[in-house]
Amino acid sequence: MIAVTGIEELNNLRRKLKGPTGFVPTMGFLHEGHLSLVREARKHNQTVIVSIFVNPAQFGPSEDFQTYPKDIKHDLEILRKEGVDIVFTPSSEEMYPEDYSTWIEVAGLTEKLEGASRPGHFKGVATIVLKLLNITRPDVVYFGQKDAQQAIVIKHLVRDLNVPVNVIVMPTIRQPDGLALSSRNYYLSKEENEAATIIYKSLRLASKLYQNGERSPVKIKQAMTELIRSEPLVTIDDISIALPENLEELDIVNGQALVSLAVWIGKTRLIDNIIL
Amino acid sequence: MIAVTGIEELNNLRRKLKGPTGFVPTMGFLHEGHLSLVREARKHNQTVIVSIFVNPAQFGPSEDFQTYPKDIKHDLEILRKEGVDIVFTPSSEEMYPEDYSTWIEVAGLTEKLEGASRPGHFKGVATIVLKLLNITRPDVVYFGQKDAQQAIVIKHLVRDLNVPVNVIVMPTIRQPDGLALSSRNYYLSKEENEAATIIYKSLRLASKLYQNGERSPVKIKQAMTELIRSEPLVTIDDISIALPENLEELDIVNGQALVSLAVWIGKTRLIDNIIL
Repeated sequence: MIAVTGIEELNNLRRKLKGPTGFVPTMGFLHEGHLSLVREARKHNQTVIVSIFVNPAQFGPSEDFQTYPKDIKHDLEILRKEGVDIVFTPSSEEMYPEDYSTWIEVAGLTEKLEGASRPGHFKGVATIVLKLLNITRPDVVYFGQKDAQQAIVIKHLVRDLNVPVNVIVMPTIRQPDGLALSSRNYYLSKEENEAATIIYKSLRLASKLYQNGERSPVKIKQAMTELIRSEPLVTIDDISIALPENLEELDIVNGQALVSLAVWIGKTRLIDNIIL
Repeated sequence: MIAVTGIEELNNLRRKLKGPTGFVPTMGFLHEGHLSLVREARKHNQTVIVSIFVNPAQFGPSEDFQTYPKDIKHDLEILRKEGVDIVFTPSSEEMYPEDYSTWIEVAGLTEKLEGASRPGHFKGVATIVLKLLNITRPDVVYFGQKDAQQAIVIKHLVRDLNVPVNVIVMPTIRQPDGLALSSRNYYLSKEENEAATIIYKSLRLASKLYQNGERSPVKIKQAMTELIRSEPLVTIDDISIALPENLEELDIVNGQALVSLAVWIGKTRLIDNIIL
């Protein structure tokens, strides 16, 4: 495994690569969710590139950029064990030189859900992902379903800008108790971690109600809200039941729907989703 | 020469190409300015791709998108004679499908000069150029110095987004009387075409004053303005003397400076520039 910090160095390496290349962009502090993407990339490509970069441009001024958990040594160790070929760990200065000024706007899609709660977030995400795709030039790039809107935004961006890459979205990986794996779970105390299991419970409740014939997003959201309120450590930030293609909120559920949930637990914001 | 209208079709062709590929993006109605780019591309690449696409996104609502001159038959004829390999002539629907919503913003640079006179223009330019680069994936892309700010914006975008392409800017091609070639010259009457020669005359005046030791942008602009005012058919839209790197207006000229001029002649807006 080769660890690379410079764009020029990666370009030189990239030019020599032959055969299909899979790419997994991450912000590090890797967990089994990331590793499921790495393993899928390993299975289907001759070369696997993983990037680790905590992208300042996708954090709001009052968000957790400074405190975002890091353990680069451990990350490199487990990526080596997974048989990754190249790890790209650029600095902020390398990715955003002094007079940097180019930004990608995916209008519409990015103003909903997470975009509404975190203004500018997806501009940062779209821009860094496009940069990383241009640097690594993979045939396939892998994202997790846990960040559902991110995956939708990236797919839209790749289609709109004709980026020559195949976008694969892999299922959310969960603890045995249902909590979706996230680097931000690290912020949670033991009690908060337990309380956080209400997130997936409420998503499964939505699923069960739907299977029992409920078609009203209002009623499904009410039931979810009631359940979550039974857990005093958890506060709802946003519940959405929307069309997966364009994230338009639904008046009635018939056909596929994306149920997305964002909550606060103390100072930690967690998201999760399920498809009905 | 193969003429292609579909993105998918071009992708399939592109995959089979070997060796260096040069790309010349155009809006058609080709003149010797375009052909100088095509010939440079032909000289240095195994494959030459030219696109012809009048990009609606870079025209303002009151601009000349509807009337922009076209002669696709003649364009294809001369490109064939120049030994071009692939001509890409997509439709607007192909480039901007119904729910298209992704835009590139090059902040700072695009708000000056042409960007100030034509709000949104460079967002349209940056977006279509990135799309075309992703579709054609050239090693080298060629632009003309006549659209100086466009070349600067594209170079900045390519650097910021790490687009793996080399940007070459070729000198402006002029009529024997000095008027820079432009598809929009087609709009000019015989009298207007003659009057338009004052544009380059005023740029040469700027150059001469500078060579004679004048360092004040205010004085150089005054002299240019006076000269242009002697031509009643021509109205100044903007004169700028700025740093070529970031288009910041200069208080004093020492080192390189880009003198840019935009004028109206009847309903036709023409631009030209010179480097001091």
